[in-house]
Amino acid sequence: MSISRRKFFAFAGASSALALGTSTAQASTKVPAKWDETFDVVIVGSGLAGMSAAVEASKAGAKVIVLDKMALFGGNSILNAGAMGVAGTPMQKKLGIKDSAELFYEDMFREGLGLGEKAHVKLVAEKSLDAWNWTREVLGVEWNEDTVIAEGGHSVARGCLTKSGTGATIIQNGLDLAKKQGAVLRNKVYVEEIIREEGGRVLGLKVREGYKFPKEGTGTVKYIRAKKGVVLAHGGFGADVKYRSIHDPKLSNRFETTNQPGATAEMWRQAADVGCTIIQADWIQCGPWASPDEQGFGLAVGFAQDCCAMYGLWVNTTTGKRFVNELANRKVRADAIINLNNKDQECIAISDTNAFEGSLKISRPGHLEKALDKGCVFKFDSLEAIAKKFNIPMDALKAEIDTYNQHVANKATTDAMGRTIQVGARQLGQGPWYVSRLAPKVHHCMGGIRIDTECRALDGVTDQPIPGLFAAGEATGGTHGAVRLGTCSITECLVHGRIAGQSVAKAKG
Amino acid sequence: MSISRRKFFAFAGASSALALGTSTAQASTKVPAKWDETFDVVIVGSGLAGMSAAVEASKAGAKVIVLDKMALFGGNSILNAGAMGVAGTPMQKKLGIKDSAELFYEDMFREGLGLGEKAHVKLVAEKSLDAWNWTREVLGVEWNEDTVIAEGGHSVARGCLTKSGTGATIIQNGLDLAKKQGAVLRNKVYVEEIIREEGGRVLGLKVREGYKFPKEGTGTVKYIRAKKGVVLAHGGFGADVKYRSIHDPKLSNRFETTNQPGATAEMWRQAADVGCTIIQADWIQCGPWASPDEQGFGLAVGFAQDCCAMYGLWVNTTTGKRFVNELANRKVRADAIINLNNKDQECIAISDTNAFEGSLKISRPGHLEKALDKGCVFKFDSLEAIAKKFNIPMDALKAEIDTYNQHVANKATTDAMGRTIQVGARQLGQGPWYVSRLAPKVHHCMGGIRIDTECRALDGVTDQPIPGLFAAGEATGGTHGAVRLGTCSITECLVHGRIAGQSVAKAKG
Repeated sequence: MSISRRKFFAFAGASSALALGTSTAQASTKVPAKWDETFDVVIVGSGLAGMSAAVEASKAGAKVIVLDKMALFGGNSILNAGAMGVAGTPMQKKLGIKDSAELFYEDMFREGLGLGEKAHVKLVAEKSLDAWNWTREVLGVEWNEDTVIAEGGHSVARGCLTKSGTGATIIQNGLDLAKKQGAVLRNKVYVEEIIREEGGRVLGLKVREGYKFPKEGTGTVKYIRAKKGVVLAHGGFGADVKYRSIHDPKLSNRFETTNQPGATAEMWRQAADVGCTIIQADWIQCGPWASPDEQGFGLAVGFAQDCCAMYGLWVNTTTGKRFVNELANRKVRADAIINLNNKDQECIAISDTNAFEGSLKISRPGHLEKALDKGCVFKFDSLEAIAKKFNIPMDALKAEIDTYNQHVANKATTDAMGRTIQVGARQLGQGPWYVSRLAPKVHHCMGGIRIDTECRALDGVTDQPIPGLFAAGEATGGTHGAVRLGTCSITECLVHGRIAGQSVAKAKG
Repeated sequence: MSISRRKFFAFAGASSALALGTSTAQASTKVPAKWDETFDVVIVGSGLAGMSAAVEASKAGAKVIVLDKMALFGGNSILNAGAMGVAGTPMQKKLGIKDSAELFYEDMFREGLGLGEKAHVKLVAEKSLDAWNWTREVLGVEWNEDTVIAEGGHSVARGCLTKSGTGATIIQNGLDLAKKQGAVLRNKVYVEEIIREEGGRVLGLKVREGYKFPKEGTGTVKYIRAKKGVVLAHGGFGADVKYRSIHDPKLSNRFETTNQPGATAEMWRQAADVGCTIIQADWIQCGPWASPDEQGFGLAVGFAQDCCAMYGLWVNTTTGKRFVNELANRKVRADAIINLNNKDQECIAISDTNAFEGSLKISRPGHLEKALDKGCVFKFDSLEAIAKKFNIPMDALKAEIDTYNQHVANKATTDAMGRTIQVGARQLGQGPWYVSRLAPKVHHCMGGIRIDTECRALDGVTDQPIPGLFAAGEATGGTHGAVRLGTCSITECLVHGRIAGQSVAKAKG
């Protein structure tokens, strides 16, 4: 267990307080005799938010360092499926989908159950197109220009997909550019303490370089000064069972996570301890589309969502019936599955070849084949074979397919559960068929550090910005409210990350 | 704006750190040259939790002071309706109601949506009967021995009612006893800072005596030392629009509150700043039974709940139909009313004379008359007169009454909305009739300081108890989860308050 933050502050304070009168500043061995290194901007975390801040701050001329405790840069962002919610893209225009920043805002705010801070929801919605264009024009990211996807809770399809099928491309291009602009990237650096002086300003960090995750206390202690400020972009705590159980006791180790193992809470604890306001940390999202047949985020997700939720079915194997609007928000869907699991009932996602060819084959070429190879999606010759394998009442299953096919034939816009029937949907019935099993996994932390619209972290006592402290991405709260919609994480990380980078670069040193 | 806590810590730390080497302990004017007063136990807040802690700690021989910033002692607790959830009372046995601590636990945990910490939910349920007996045998509180009420979300009636019809009796008797046992009660004392030393121990408080609510900075600064510990029993922040909007932006000043005006958040900010773990602060309950025709908690509540929700109807005036299970938990009911209000539809609670005579007349003699006098409950000669006044479709309203009467005739146990038909319910139809209007008001904070089962406050960095810091009551989180059931606040305050008092009295000085 590390020494309490307060202990450190007290000692740090001792030196500064005395320095006013006596200039003998070494009252404690805890205070660094000198800072080992000095940068204008120190960014904690190298995911989409940290990367965006690094690109903007280094572009503005600041001397930047990006720290990541893991051996790999990119955090959870390199695992994500590369889908970004954007209102007003050329693809939407081409496909005749009417969208606007206002509609995007309304979707996010409504599905967030009114817990989102309107100023942040608006900011993210309004800057989404700008951020997407930035990835193309400045970072050189290539996007699929043939389609957009509809994730649950969005009233229209607005999910753009990277050509690579992953968010890693955005990260890689962005970090390369930041480096080219002079930013230093340093991995295996664990932040042990945020150093905030007694007058209220964040001065820098105490870190351990050469840290070997997950071994606490490894690496060499160094003190890094941040002249303009520290940007907290450390992400969520989905992989930290102890911490997530404090805020939501339901999410015990019974639940797996889609997150990388470094998604732990030590920076959440530090941020709270240094005086940040932490809001809504108990809103922790489970991804409903995950599979128990692979670890982590995996490959079945793309299949269960883009193929089955949009153009196929999600079915309760005990009843043979659908059990939820497959395009409801993640909370509604995950809760529905968890409730059935608690009654020992299992849920699966089903697609035929028609649905596959109209969706995943276009949006993510080669993805299904990889998932089949991996053994997290299964292939069947017929619907009967699926029913037999999962012990599903065949009549009920057949009836669900018939109902769906009728909606398609009638060009219905929604079904009885409220699911949008996609424009261009095709009837189901063409083998081979495909199936993945559904097991919600802890996925995203909606809450976090409270920030203003310049991404300055706000003090829990005064509600004022903490000088020298900025934050963006999953580490922050206030944008998604109770439910983060699919594809909105990239949007939020890029919009807030860029603003954080611009704000800190402008800050006084 | 007060000076940052961290600033204070730093200076306090300066003195202590230096003291180790030099024993010149006055590095800063912020550090008191000496403590103005010293007690074993300093309790912040004089509501049910603070009172219970004071009785137990003083009984154990500790020198105790209870601080309250308001002129009146008792906080929100003196406003409450004196209903306490208890499993296994003589009244339940007399009425043939089967109950147990296990069933009570299950109700609280289920309705709390699994966000409650099991250890605390169990503790409160298991100690409920003991705490109730304590109020009778030790505090001398008199309870209505003819009836128990069923608040929403409880699977059986288990709400005991004070004979006085208010929680003020419990408070008054308890504070009198604490005083008799040597405790000092001091009002108009505002706590400006919790003083935690650099080694991690809470030492005492910086306060302002003679504080004039709500004027910040009034009163005289004093430092009070707590040798054994501080007990935080400062309650919730329902009356603090700014703070509640930070955690749940929906709850703007559009919403009134049932709370007394002193239910503000400065101690929540201080607790977070001093290193407590604050959990689930975004779960803020609105009371569905409140009336827009009076301020604060008021009198209509008892009518709308005990009379109409249990034996009458809640109706949407636009449709003439019921719109919710009147005995669902408070969140379900408040959400239902708010959703209708957002569509400009109004909801009312209706009772006839039969329902009144079978409920409120027995449980709270004289209450209806006071409410009629005050103008928050209205009297009508006939159902037709109600329909005319509120512009309700008479046929639909009549049909709802008929359906209810059929259930009563058939001795049904529940209706189509899941409402329990009470044992001994009587058919509706006997004038005069009574009505109150329904307007949810901010009522209770479910979240708060994380404590262990000895009511020790847990540090946000280490998860270990903070030496010298204890907490109980609405200031704490973890018992009620997403929804506090009606009648469970008194239970929680008494159970945790007593434990906090016992724990702090045993602590080392």
